[in-house]
Amino acid sequence: MGTAKLHAGAYGDVSERRRLIASLRDIFGARLATGEAMRRQHANTLTWIANEPPDAVVWPETTREVADVVRLAGTHRVPVIPFGAGTSLEGHVNAPCGGIALDLQRMNRIIAVRARDLDCTVEAGVTRRQLNQHLRDEGLFFPVDPGAEEATLGGMAATRASGTNAVRYGTMRENVLNVTAVMADGSIVKTGGRARKSAAGYDLTRLLVGSEGTLAIITELSLRLAAIPESIVAAVCPFATIDGACNASIQVIQLGLGVARIELLDAAQIGAVNVHSKLALEEAPTLFVELNGTPASTREQVAAFEEIARACGALDFAWAADADARRRLWQARHDAFWSVGTRWPGKSVLVTDVAVPISRLAECITETEADIRRSGLVAPIVGHVGDGNFHTIPVFDPSNLREVATLRGFLARLSQRAIAMEGTCSGEHGIGQGKIDALKREMGTGVEVMRQIKRGLDPLNILNPGKIFTL
Amino acid sequence: MGTAKLHAGAYGDVSERRRLIASLRDIFGARLATGEAMRRQHANTLTWIANEPPDAVVWPETTREVADVVRLAGTHRVPVIPFGAGTSLEGHVNAPCGGIALDLQRMNRIIAVRARDLDCTVEAGVTRRQLNQHLRDEGLFFPVDPGAEEATLGGMAATRASGTNAVRYGTMRENVLNVTAVMADGSIVKTGGRARKSAAGYDLTRLLVGSEGTLAIITELSLRLAAIPESIVAAVCPFATIDGACNASIQVIQLGLGVARIELLDAAQIGAVNVHSKLALEEAPTLFVELNGTPASTREQVAAFEEIARACGALDFAWAADADARRRLWQARHDAFWSVGTRWPGKSVLVTDVAVPISRLAECITETEADIRRSGLVAPIVGHVGDGNFHTIPVFDPSNLREVATLRGFLARLSQRAIAMEGTCSGEHGIGQGKIDALKREMGTGVEVMRQIKRGLDPLNILNPGKIFTL
Repeated sequence: MGTAKLHAGAYGDVSERRRLIASLRDIFGARLATGEAMRRQHANTLTWIANEPPDAVVWPETTREVADVVRLAGTHRVPVIPFGAGTSLEGHVNAPCGGIALDLQRMNRIIAVRARDLDCTVEAGVTRRQLNQHLRDEGLFFPVDPGAEEATLGGMAATRASGTNAVRYGTMRENVLNVTAVMADGSIVKTGGRARKSAAGYDLTRLLVGSEGTLAIITELSLRLAAIPESIVAAVCPFATIDGACNASIQVIQLGLGVARIELLDAAQIGAVNVHSKLALEEAPTLFVELNGTPASTREQVAAFEEIARACGALDFAWAADADARRRLWQARHDAFWSVGTRWPGKSVLVTDVAVPISRLAECITETEADIRRSGLVAPIVGHVGDGNFHTIPVFDPSNLREVATLRGFLARLSQRAIAMEGTCSGEHGIGQGKIDALKREMGTGVEVMRQIKRGLDPLNILNPGKIFTL
Repeated sequence: MGTAKLHAGAYGDVSERRRLIASLRDIFGARLATGEAMRRQHANTLTWIANEPPDAVVWPETTREVADVVRLAGTHRVPVIPFGAGTSLEGHVNAPCGGIALDLQRMNRIIAVRARDLDCTVEAGVTRRQLNQHLRDEGLFFPVDPGAEEATLGGMAATRASGTNAVRYGTMRENVLNVTAVMADGSIVKTGGRARKSAAGYDLTRLLVGSEGTLAIITELSLRLAAIPESIVAAVCPFATIDGACNASIQVIQLGLGVARIELLDAAQIGAVNVHSKLALEEAPTLFVELNGTPASTREQVAAFEEIARACGALDFAWAADADARRRLWQARHDAFWSVGTRWPGKSVLVTDVAVPISRLAECITETEADIRRSGLVAPIVGHVGDGNFHTIPVFDPSNLREVATLRGFLARLSQRAIAMEGTCSGEHGIGQGKIDALKREMGTGVEVMRQIKRGLDPLNILNPGKIFTL
């Protein structure tokens, strides 16, 4: 086991791990794997953070089985790392101290859909795609859309995921009604009922949402659903300047126009998408907007949006209401991430996710663009600008130490810039291993409060150690 | 000091308390009081829960002073109880173990209003009335409306308050962007920035919102604001049956009609209001609705609402758009609580606040009405039915032991009924001292998780002990 050298100190040694794996094999049989390829697949695979595989992978099928694993792991003092679809971008599923990866993909039952309450209950391994396919015939959908269709709802809750729809429908913070979770001592807790509001004690739901598997393993969750809107209108418009595009977004939010999505692609991002998707869009900062409502209200909104956009220097204004035309209009946005890899083949990419108060958005993006230019980096920008949240996608060669140093400097300045504007180093990807230092700069003494909570709930530090903060 | 007999055990004894008060007098001078009347005013005064006064009251003016009090209290192992306006209904401000009441009313500065970001930062002692008066000229308002104009925003955050507007604008859970708080060790923590979303570590903001002063003292907070809507329309309609009124509410929510408020008064409540406010409303279950939007969208909403209401057995339908007419139409709702005391003079009242999933609302209210009749109680009903949340207001004589026993039985059944419907014993008033047993029934093992968090953050149990759970 390659990670054995890390296992000194507080955790069980190699023989403890062997005993634990033997006990787990008795329970799980073929649902336990220790082959290197499988272990590596269950560590960080999507980003430049080094792959740190667990000692073994198990596939539980019930909350009770998850509790059994956690209890046994506690006895042997071995870490447990929950694993959804592995789409995390900050090393959340790595096993820096070894341990057992708990792959929840077999916990994929949709337990109940309650159309009258606009909610549902699912197991943690249910994916977004699976849930939304299941809901389609009921005229409902689950609105949180981080881009990855195969992301599991448990993983999305654990990382407080959001995405394009958050400006209207909120993030996982607003859309998780309750979770069932296994605590570090193996006890099973349900954090609340399904009433839309509650003042019944500490908000355990919101505490576990975004806790990245460090406080509990989420095994089941109840989610808010939304009715598929009667009318959906898409609009796309390029702007003379990125400042104009940002200011249009700010006004849209301030007027409470009720947009469902408002996304910005900068000129470099449009260029990449033109190559990847064989489009011929004008290489200018461009807003992609979606408006949801009744036919009358979306008509009103389109007119209001066009007026704002023109006043902010929109060069053009295209809109569409039927599904196919909308899809064509939004294709550039959907292909944004993938296009960067195509445009610069052989390079690595990473994705940042700072967020700032909306009034500082134009300033933050403009300063960041200037920083990208000064640093000699290539880094297209795509943003959920309605939330003040934007991604840069730096393109780099991880074997070129000078390039990596330049990139690290840029990342540190970007976080610092957002924090100085009363924003955050992470609007939606979470801290994981990648942003531990940025979180310290952002939260100061707050990190110590997080550590106290962690020590109170997981005194042996067996749940996903080495994420969010060091202990 | 009348509560000295309770101070045995873990807390500092009478001489420790004397030394603490002497130290505090050195700092606070005339901003410290030990007179009995003042101490009693800073304990529970609004409900039937016995008044348990603190040993002394102090009026800090800065976060730093709050930290000084908490640090000194920790040294002497004496409790600290934060106090806003004293409008809590569940004994949150009582001092069952004695201690220092920390009255935050002098921390009443509005630090910043940022219209472009639709947010503001205030000290904890700022009241709703004060903030909304300050905002009026900017065309903005703070939407969370628990009824009490003089409630402080710090207290509202600490109890996760909500009220009539929550169906559209959310509760304190959704409207607090961050808090500055003093932890049990006297350290000062800011729980986040002002970005609309964040995935930066544990959600300390949501953990402190609703923690009832048991984890930290909130001294400052940033809040989301809303634009005063262009068009506000009020509608009132009596129904043949309470079931019809509930079903109309359910459909309104399911259709996503975008109501800002939807309130139910039952026939007994309308009767009380007719007496109190000299009105002549039909004594029938009645919905009070407010719709916010553009002129076009509110027109659309009124029409849709009237159609739903008629189909559910509405007996009449009155609506108004100008401010004076709206106020007249809604007067019965605004006067609801006060009318109960007028209608049954000399009696005590209390207010329950269960919430259930909206699909169970009609059933829960109907069963509760039957229970009220069977128990021989008088208990008008008024509810924020859009959230599945409703109040009963039992009228009773606290010196009549049989009446009190009947009432206690009713309260236990009401909580149990809501919990069995996957609802909560408290939609908005919190747990305090009054619902400790109900919370145990509702949360089961979750209460132990709350205790672990409490022990992690306040190992000496000096912050508002005896609330939410026993340790």
